[in-house]
Amino acid sequence: MRIMLARISEHAAEQIEVRGWVHRIRELGKISFILLRDASGMAQLVVDSGSGSETVARTASRLTLESVVSVRGLVAGNDKAPGGFELRVSELELIAGAEADLPLAVNQDPDKVSLDTILEHRMISLRNPKILSVFRLQSSILEFFAGHMRSEGFTEIKTSKLIGTGTEGGTGLFAVEYFDTRVFLAQSPQFYKQAMVSAGLERVFEIGCAYRAEKHETPRHLNEYVSLDVETAWIDSEQDLMDLEVRILKTIFEGLQRNNAEVLQQWRATVPSNEQLDRIPRVSHDQAKETIGTLAGRKVYEINPEGERILCDWALKEHGVEAVFVFGWPRKKRPFYTYPLDARSTMSFDLLFRGLEITTGGRRINEYPMLLENIELFGLQPASLADYIEIFKYGCPPHGGFAIGLERLTQKILGLANVKEASLFPRDRRRIRP
Amino acid sequence: MRIMLARISEHAAEQIEVRGWVHRIRELGKISFILLRDASGMAQLVVDSGSGSETVARTASRLTLESVVSVRGLVAGNDKAPGGFELRVSELELIAGAEADLPLAVNQDPDKVSLDTILEHRMISLRNPKILSVFRLQSSILEFFAGHMRSEGFTEIKTSKLIGTGTEGGTGLFAVEYFDTRVFLAQSPQFYKQAMVSAGLERVFEIGCAYRAEKHETPRHLNEYVSLDVETAWIDSEQDLMDLEVRILKTIFEGLQRNNAEVLQQWRATVPSNEQLDRIPRVSHDQAKETIGTLAGRKVYEINPEGERILCDWALKEHGVEAVFVFGWPRKKRPFYTYPLDARSTMSFDLLFRGLEITTGGRRINEYPMLLENIELFGLQPASLADYIEIFKYGCPPHGGFAIGLERLTQKILGLANVKEASLFPRDRRRIRP
Repeated sequence: MRIMLARISEHAAEQIEVRGWVHRIRELGKISFILLRDASGMAQLVVDSGSGSETVARTASRLTLESVVSVRGLVAGNDKAPGGFELRVSELELIAGAEADLPLAVNQDPDKVSLDTILEHRMISLRNPKILSVFRLQSSILEFFAGHMRSEGFTEIKTSKLIGTGTEGGTGLFAVEYFDTRVFLAQSPQFYKQAMVSAGLERVFEIGCAYRAEKHETPRHLNEYVSLDVETAWIDSEQDLMDLEVRILKTIFEGLQRNNAEVLQQWRATVPSNEQLDRIPRVSHDQAKETIGTLAGRKVYEINPEGERILCDWALKEHGVEAVFVFGWPRKKRPFYTYPLDARSTMSFDLLFRGLEITTGGRRINEYPMLLENIELFGLQPASLADYIEIFKYGCPPHGGFAIGLERLTQKILGLANVKEASLFPRDRRRIRP
Repeated sequence: MRIMLARISEHAAEQIEVRGWVHRIRELGKISFILLRDASGMAQLVVDSGSGSETVARTASRLTLESVVSVRGLVAGNDKAPGGFELRVSELELIAGAEADLPLAVNQDPDKVSLDTILEHRMISLRNPKILSVFRLQSSILEFFAGHMRSEGFTEIKTSKLIGTGTEGGTGLFAVEYFDTRVFLAQSPQFYKQAMVSAGLERVFEIGCAYRAEKHETPRHLNEYVSLDVETAWIDSEQDLMDLEVRILKTIFEGLQRNNAEVLQQWRATVPSNEQLDRIPRVSHDQAKETIGTLAGRKVYEINPEGERILCDWALKEHGVEAVFVFGWPRKKRPFYTYPLDARSTMSFDLLFRGLEITTGGRRINEYPMLLENIELFGLQPASLADYIEIFKYGCPPHGGFAIGLERLTQKILGLANVKEASLFPRDRRRIRP
């Protein structure tokens, strides 16, 4: 039976079998030290070409980095070995050899390699344990997000990503050649999650791809990303949604501290505590602009990326947490379906976390006459929204929701410089591979 | 505090608040019986216009089906009411009225409505409790699938659905206008899940959309579907994969019996027991053709949909389970990356369940020279597969995997006539909305 490398210490003085990738090779006279890597971690193999088997020594001498091997040997204590134990090799089988011209070093600190090289050779750069750890943590975010939603009675939905028209007017959409017609890739499951609340599920969540055909080339934009979408009936205002998001983030952050402490450590990252999350200030859009203006020493007309950073710095200083909810966004800055608070502002919010917007949400219009009015006010064609309008024509409860960008959340948890580092195979204006 | 309708029996003789959609209205002299529906179920409201409040009676008299209301009243026992309890209404607030021209009946057996009408007015037909229940069950499938994979140490991944070239040669792909170039919607995360196994995760799963630009118009095809993908290192052959799939199905089916008994009952559906799943026969592709041939009384050249039904009937009769694994598919019927068993056949399998293929999988080629050879044999261009080839050039362990179609599995569990009934917003050649 194969033993995972992280657990060889449990088999001291036993003959065991291990498997993995050759991470590092060091020769010391007649002794080769091979650092082997598997899904669980790493351990040191020792091949003694003086006293050991000649076949093993010959195979070992030809090993290249990243070759896949199966190994048998004796587990022995060694204070100098990583983890305090090593495997003294008695059998060594080459399962799949690696060519010697690796396009980038797998066993070095990835900070020394350019992001462009890392993404160009993504199939290989992901072997770097520090790079790969980003996606172990991301898997946990998915787990804890879904787990939390289910614990509050939310139903998971999967909706189509091929839509006839855009949810927000048709700009920023990728067109798809669909048989004899043209459709678009959905920017969000907005209409569908509202439909499912109103169809009677009341509380739904979706984990799915979202697409933005925007020509941004910034460290915070992706053209394809994973959206963690939430929608719930019977809210009074966006305040209920912020409460819900705090509960979700508590579950995710607690879970990561429990399950992914190693990844957090590797990236020298921490997540806010429950106490900190309870302290996230909630400021109105007007207050937010004023605060930014005061701190930046100039008149502020809108909350741009620099403003987001200033606000989070302010929140850390004043409230001890690097996050801010900004609510009450102006009507002209929100989509037509956003519930108005008054003539100027809406029941909507953003969550800024460590200087970046990671969530947008709000209450939606559920009243049929108000919706028709707003569609006209926004200059949209009711005919192009006929399916959506049907949700409200036949009775829809008050509701609202939000979406968390998975890659942005990952980025900000680990302190990654670019959101592309938090996407396995990121797509941007120039990059459509690997 | 709002009480969910399924739980009013716990509040006998109390004044409570409930909310929901008006499902049915029945007038009996001065008394109106209103069946109210919420996410949890239904309960009967009683409005007595003789003795009760005039305001309530007036509001009640104007109610239309599907209107959303908030109600206060006294919970009282009534043997004739669904669930044995009813709510005697003292306050009735119309939250969102429904127009009277419902495009289809929400409160009747959907079997009487054509699938076309159901899909045309999807926003409304999903309100039908029987139709909606399909997607409650589907949410549970997602939960139990992911839970099982995590319990076996699999990491969840999210990979791009925008690809430069097809995984299987470029036919059947939808093209996307991507800035100044053209990309395609992925048919499967095949290359990416293999990349992540080889990047060191060893065991991965993905829940994501898959696209097939096929002109099929059958009850078993969708142009967009949700694929439950699995890939794992260190298998010997496809037999290990069939073992894994049986374990997954056990978890899913046990979970559904526990959590979704009502849905199963509503559709008069059952799922195979663990004992039945252990009895699923494994027949080679040759044996399968022979069995079909014997039963159909003619020579069989390939396993077509009729053959799949015959095989499942045979399995039920001979082995007491409506499922068959067919392994050892011919090389010419499988993609270039499938591991060959010999000159003619491959280490691959399908799972047929209740007459329908719900899984395709197999061991993949992990050896670099063999892969290059097979790419040539299939007449493909290595240059177009350069990123994929990089996975194997630098050491990749033996591995394999499979994909389960979420909608097909849902369809077959509930006995739905058409796979489109198992997709919230199905896409086919003619349908791109709602």
